[in-house]
Amino acid sequence: MSTPPPGTGPVQEFLAGLRLVDHHCHGVVTADPSPERFESLITEGEAWPGSGITSFDSPVGVAVRRYCAPVLDLPRHAPAAEYLARRAELGWREVNRRFVSAAGTDVFCVDTGYAPDRLTTPAELADCVVGAAAAYEVVRLESVAESVADEGVEPGEYAAVFRAAAQAAVERPGTVGVKSVAAYRTGFDLDPSRPSDADVTEAARRWLRTHEAAVRTHRPEAPVAHRLDDPVLVRHLLWTAVDLGLPLQLHTGFGDNDIRMHRVDPTHLTDWLHLISGTVPVLLLHCWPYQRQAAYLATVFEQVYLDVGLTLHYVGPARARAILEEALEITPFRKLLYSSDAYGVAEFYQLGAVAFRQGLAALLQDRVGSDDLCLADALRIAAWTGRDNAFRVYGFPERHPTPGSDRA
Amino acid sequence: MSTPPPGTGPVQEFLAGLRLVDHHCHGVVTADPSPERFESLITEGEAWPGSGITSFDSPVGVAVRRYCAPVLDLPRHAPAAEYLARRAELGWREVNRRFVSAAGTDVFCVDTGYAPDRLTTPAELADCVVGAAAAYEVVRLESVAESVADEGVEPGEYAAVFRAAAQAAVERPGTVGVKSVAAYRTGFDLDPSRPSDADVTEAARRWLRTHEAAVRTHRPEAPVAHRLDDPVLVRHLLWTAVDLGLPLQLHTGFGDNDIRMHRVDPTHLTDWLHLISGTVPVLLLHCWPYQRQAAYLATVFEQVYLDVGLTLHYVGPARARAILEEALEITPFRKLLYSSDAYGVAEFYQLGAVAFRQGLAALLQDRVGSDDLCLADALRIAAWTGRDNAFRVYGFPERHPTPGSDRA
Amino acid sequence: MSTPPPGTGPVQEFLAGLRLVDHHCHGVVTADPSPERFESLITEGEAWPGSGITSFDSPVGVAVRRYCAPVLDLPRHAPAAEYLARRAELGWREVNRRFVSAAGTDVFCVDTGYAPDRLTTPAELADCVVGAAAAYEVVRLESVAESVADEGVEPGEYAAVFRAAAQAAVERPGTVGVKSVAAYRTGFDLDPSRPSDADVTEAARRWLRTHEAAVRTHRPEAPVAHRLDDPVLVRHLLWTAVDLGLPLQLHTGFGDNDIRMHRVDPTHLTDWLHLISGTVPVLLLHCWPYQRQAAYLATVFEQVYLDVGLTLHYVGPARARAILEEALEITPFRKLLYSSDAYGVAEFYQLGAVAFRQGLAALLQDRVGSDDLCLADALRIAAWTGRDNAFRVYGFPERHPTPGSDRA
Repeated sequence: MSTPPPGTGPVQEFLAGLRLVDHHCHGVVTADPSPERFESLITEGEAWPGSGITSFDSPVGVAVRRYCAPVLDLPRHAPAAEYLARRAELGWREVNRRFVSAAGTDVFCVDTGYAPDRLTTPAELADCVVGAAAAYEVVRLESVAESVADEGVEPGEYAAVFRAAAQAAVERPGTVGVKSVAAYRTGFDLDPSRPSDADVTEAARRWLRTHEAAVRTHRPEAPVAHRLDDPVLVRHLLWTAVDLGLPLQLHTGFGDNDIRMHRVDPTHLTDWLHLISGTVPVLLLHCWPYQRQAAYLATVFEQVYLDVGLTLHYVGPARARAILEEALEITPFRKLLYSSDAYGVAEFYQLGAVAFRQGLAALLQDRVGSDDLCLADALRIAAWTGRDNAFRVYGFPERHPTPGSDRA
Repeated sequence: MSTPPPGTGPVQEFLAGLRLVDHHCHGVVTADPSPERFESLITEGEAWPGSGITSFDSPVGVAVRRYCAPVLDLPRHAPAAEYLARRAELGWREVNRRFVSAAGTDVFCVDTGYAPDRLTTPAELADCVVGAAAAYEVVRLESVAESVADEGVEPGEYAAVFRAAAQAAVERPGTVGVKSVAAYRTGFDLDPSRPSDADVTEAARRWLRTHEAAVRTHRPEAPVAHRLDDPVLVRHLLWTAVDLGLPLQLHTGFGDNDIRMHRVDPTHLTDWLHLISGTVPVLLLHCWPYQRQAAYLATVFEQVYLDVGLTLHYVGPARARAILEEALEITPFRKLLYSSDAYGVAEFYQLGAVAFRQGLAALLQDRVGSDDLCLADALRIAAWTGRDNAFRVYGFPERHPTPGSDRA
Repeated sequence: MSTPPPGTGPVQEFLAGLRLVDHHCHGVVTADPSPERFESLITEGEAWPGSGITSFDSPVGVAVRRYCAPVLDLPRHAPAAEYLARRAELGWREVNRRFVSAAGTDVFCVDTGYAPDRLTTPAELADCVVGAAAAYEVVRLESVAESVADEGVEPGEYAAVFRAAAQAAVERPGTVGVKSVAAYRTGFDLDPSRPSDADVTEAARRWLRTHEAAVRTHRPEAPVAHRLDDPVLVRHLLWTAVDLGLPLQLHTGFGDNDIRMHRVDPTHLTDWLHLISGTVPVLLLHCWPYQRQAAYLATVFEQVYLDVGLTLHYVGPARARAILEEALEITPFRKLLYSSDAYGVAEFYQLGAVAFRQGLAALLQDRVGSDDLCLADALRIAAWTGRDNAFRVYGFPERHPTPGSDRA
């Protein structure tokens, strides 16, 4: 199950050199995190001070010490305290530069809608790469809806104003997709049908009223007081996403304790996927522990794709292959994409990429070795999943303009 | 995870030579499929022309090129276009003869109730085998019920007429079991109790009325206009199956996009399995991704069995072992059966058999190698799952009459 | 997937010598079981006489013949009949002494609330160990509630009397935790909130009345006539457990056919886990096939822990590593505990320990071999999961008093 070191076969060599497209990630913090903050950034739980449990004593923690320490000139498996000291010594700018460059990624699609921390913009993220990279934006629709509510809107106008705001957001240069975190808000066991105008108005009335108190007691610096969690409005958001016409990313499965895991099995979306047949690509993100369910949907619906971002760095390179084996069990090879889903710490850009390259290479190389796959097919599958499938879905231009930047 | 080539140990040798019982399969098309039709027959999705995605670029597609091409005298990993050209050149009769013979199967149990294509009858399927084979019939009960409705029935007589039609069907020579696709129609989260006569009549009235329009606009050549999807009638069908007294096959898990996967976890059947305790054997088919849930049921209910047909050829020999490992994790060794669930293309008879033989042999041989299992036990487990368990459940006669045929 | 023999590397050596804490187990029968009773004790199903299926023909059965036979001086893979004859020849006292000693366990936490058989007390269990061991008690709260009902209580007093009885039980010397089998009674899709006093009284009235007939027809020797299965009272029991302040063990997943598997996915507990944040540790037991879901909860909730007891001996050493791989995929290393969940037959103390030691050692040794983990970390993870995490959660004293015994 553990993967051999990279570079031991032609597939490993190919994947080690392949420039990736990271079709779903976030920004990275633009400050030196305290040790406790760093620990909270490398877990989907929280830092648990006083508990005797540190995030370093977990699969992702040992993977950081093993795979990230050398990027900071430390020996493999450096102790956590040394790691944090060296990180602080280098400073966040250098740390970010090293890790984001080490990912070997040419294109980033950045979800800009979740930022409890001050994070790099897409352009700033691309600027971390030594050489050149492009960064595109993915618009998180819940953030758009919540901003509409925060700025004040009449219930009867909510649908139109939200639609206009979302349309304006996706028309910004460099925007290539939209995203929903419906998984966090209601889960996927929703009525699949498009809600009527009257239903949306009524739901907006309920939602806006409920959140009035939150708005009144709202600290001015906090970006959002409303939290879109009304089932009718979440459905409306998903249907609005369809109308926008861009690829739609959906958080699926693994996340923090705000998830109700049993409600985010993506096969709950089956009826909705039938209804939206022939419209936008739907990209299921993360997926664990539902990677097989996501693979099923990607196999039977033309417009469905999946990745195992987030999962790969949390399980680490030692277990990435096993996850990819399940994700690829029945999946058409044009349906799996690479993403890091890195957030906050630059380590996750590099660690996600290492886990993906090593895990996929081990899987493919072994199949070449047992003659279940020929080498040409293995290399094609590697290039598709690491890069080309994302080009196909998102239709990036040949040259990669980075929004808000003059590079590219 | 990938399996070594067959023939590298005594378990491999034994399984390579074992004549199988394929306790659940369908017929094969009796025509040369167009390339597009072939592509649609090797996916649980559909052919997606114009999408740039071909069914050959998937685990089952590379497995066909790797394991089926040599049966057509092509090199391993032959390109898809060459494969299809050679297939057309040989013609469907020769192709069917080669692949069905290469499966090494002595007994086929054929579900005859699903035939959107013109397919071989059980006797014709057995006739594909060079040497001798027997073919039995499995009666799909939904097809019986739908034929009853299509032919016209009063709601109050539906139960009796359906029961009589099902009884007549199972009394046909060579019939060894019945099957339900309740998974496709309602899923398994049904009221487990036997519905009352009044409830059945009322449900039949509702169902027959609903489908009247479909019947009126019905093309005469289409076999069935009604689709049995009423929850009361599906329950009634399952209870009628119990009354018939033959082994009952249940579609479970993986299938096309008509499945709502989250509703076909077989553990939803637990209350019903308690109620039917001591009656008929229940055979859970396919099961992926619920093979562990199916294994649990087979462990705790005397009358429950499982297979991983369909799954094995879709994941291919490279991944079959992993699926079998999960299916056999806790399962009594007399509870797992072999099936191909081949439909339409003859390749799947051979590919399912190869995946089963190689995957099971690798699993068992390694356990013999680590001394977790003695060789005698390994060979017994191989013979039970590949052949003997089916004999035990279905009670085939010593000599195998093929219905509608004078062979055997 | 199959594990190498122990002793082939430093992790194997370390784990082979590590004295374990078995944080969840039951007593062992104090009689010589008949062959049929033995067969029924080594399955979560039942003995199925006349079926031609024996429990020995299953993963746990071959594991008993492989790993337990040598403890009884038989060759590996001894036939079942020889095994049973030798077992009877040695007699239960010697058999228990050998297997419980062979587990290499220093501390047992014994669930004393389930005893359809006459079983060893905690002190008697510890006395089986050659050398010294300590045994603590875990109070099964359903048994306490049912005894309260059996002894007679007014509905309005039920809450207070149950609470007092539970309090008295946990104050008995040597009690270190409580357990609930809510999974068996209602599953986990419960209203998470604490029920009101009025709701509890009303539910108690309903429950006590329902079971009156059972009590009246009750054989005097049977310990319990009431079965706590009312959803309000099960919720009340879980909240009472929180009030008691001791670690709470929850049956999760795998068990006999009284489980409705789809209702015991532990992520159904998410809302309740939020509500009890900062109170008692919650230990998810067994977990299969939901080990990934349990791992998710242990990752995102500070107070959640898991084990894969019961599962490990049922899958056997050949498959234990695969289960542990999934259980440890994302789990903080301080969150996994060892348990055998042995019940009835002494074999399961030894077999669970062998499966745990071999499976975990193979996993860790391979990661050391691929340099994904350094040896020092591997040994620490082994010691934590095998022993130290239980000390941390349960706060055992340095010296281990065995309740009702003067040893320790």
